[in-house]
Amino acid sequence: MPERARQTVPVVAVVLAAGFGTRFDPSNPKQLVCIADKPIVCWSIEAFEGNERVSDIVLVVNPKVRPAVESLIDEQGYGKVRIVVDGGAERADSTAAALNVLSEAAIPSDAKILIHDAVRPFVSQQAVDDSIDALDQFSAATVACASTDTVLLTRDAGDRKVVSAVPDRADTFRAQTPQSFRFSTITRAYELAAADPDFHPTDDTRVVVDYLPDEPVAIVAGSETNLKITTLGDIPTAELIAAGLNASR
Amino acid sequence: MPERARQTVPVVAVVLAAGFGTRFDPSNPKQLVCIADKPIVCWSIEAFEGNERVSDIVLVVNPKVRPAVESLIDEQGYGKVRIVVDGGAERADSTAAALNVLSEAAIPSDAKILIHDAVRPFVSQQAVDDSIDALDQFSAATVACASTDTVLLTRDAGDRKVVSAVPDRADTFRAQTPQSFRFSTITRAYELAAADPDFHPTDDTRVVVDYLPDEPVAIVAGSETNLKITTLGDIPTAELIAAGLNASR
Repeated sequence: MPERARQTVPVVAVVLAAGFGTRFDPSNPKQLVCIADKPIVCWSIEAFEGNERVSDIVLVVNPKVRPAVESLIDEQGYGKVRIVVDGGAERADSTAAALNVLSEAAIPSDAKILIHDAVRPFVSQQAVDDSIDALDQFSAATVACASTDTVLLTRDAGDRKVVSAVPDRADTFRAQTPQSFRFSTITRAYELAAADPDFHPTDDTRVVVDYLPDEPVAIVAGSETNLKITTLGDIPTAELIAAGLNASR
Repeated sequence: MPERARQTVPVVAVVLAAGFGTRFDPSNPKQLVCIADKPIVCWSIEAFEGNERVSDIVLVVNPKVRPAVESLIDEQGYGKVRIVVDGGAERADSTAAALNVLSEAAIPSDAKILIHDAVRPFVSQQAVDDSIDALDQFSAATVACASTDTVLLTRDAGDRKVVSAVPDRADTFRAQTPQSFRFSTITRAYELAAADPDFHPTDDTRVVVDYLPDEPVAIVAGSETNLKITTLGDIPTAELIAAGLNASR
């Protein structure tokens, strides 16, 4: 596909930085913690700011960190960050807030939307490019890593979990981000999910898989370095990855 | 349940050390690599040798390392190791070889069999005890960790994997070992599997789940320190865990 064809639609990165992460450090939200002297949220913004195929960035924050994040954006001069949106209580509320803003901005229905967790600061350019490319063939895609462990699916049996199935290991993946969608696909899936009072999505891919079951979601190869920083115990590994990335640049 | 009742049946640990692990270091089989100055296979044997509820150990090796392993057993004086069995080409062949030896020894059908991968050297006494206890309520149990990542189940679509389902994260676990069974349960499952030419089990729990679907397999809590040593990249983490264990003893 010629380069021009790929670039006829906007490519929008939605960076979700709305989690409070108080398990982490109540006085210092996780997104603002520095790894190799750079706040986690800046690592994530720069992954898209520095990719020439990404046209725009929407940043979703919790209101408490908004002033700090806006200062960082000004200081660093991140020119692609078009808007900073307040997130909601759940991850899905934050995605929905970003989709609303994009609807109000009347972006084209075939725009490519890359939804990324800010706490995965080391996403590779390969994964970003492959996500953008996958949307030429599919309307939805997710970065994921093949599981090296056998996965067990379970059900409740009294106060215990028991195994209900053991899928083939070759067909089990661990989801990462970005999770990428044509704009019309993700907005349609969220509309259907919003009409279902029983649904509390924790993952954008699942919204498409459950509400648009005929829409295949492609797997894009992730990597172990695309670490999700969840607890303080993840910091030493994150520092090692950051040092490796800084050394290779 | 009173202590005496628990101890009326043999508790046999089957330690599988038959993998060649040539990805690792062709000239030094993985099981003989030292972590904190102790060969990996010795860490695993000692997890069961040191548990007073375990009565017997069957060690499954590949013939190339048999002399080295037998020397280690003699040197260390592991009194519970009853027999060293040659393993087979696949993991399931090694389990089957151990089950054959136990059949020939005419162990009781309700004996408790704990099947453990030697390359998980840091299994906790808690996990071993909980596995033995679980078999008072269930005929099968496996140590496993709750998945912290969303698991995606996939299918092939041309040269790509696409997502077929996203199970609830609370019902996804990563299998570890030991995987534990009443002797009659695991032998019956293996008999049924052996009669099916299409089946190539890679996991003992799966043999029970697939061939004895009415037999619930209980989840026993594992831990991140019950690491599987697969590549050289796992060694630094293994050394940290070993140092922590040695310091806490």
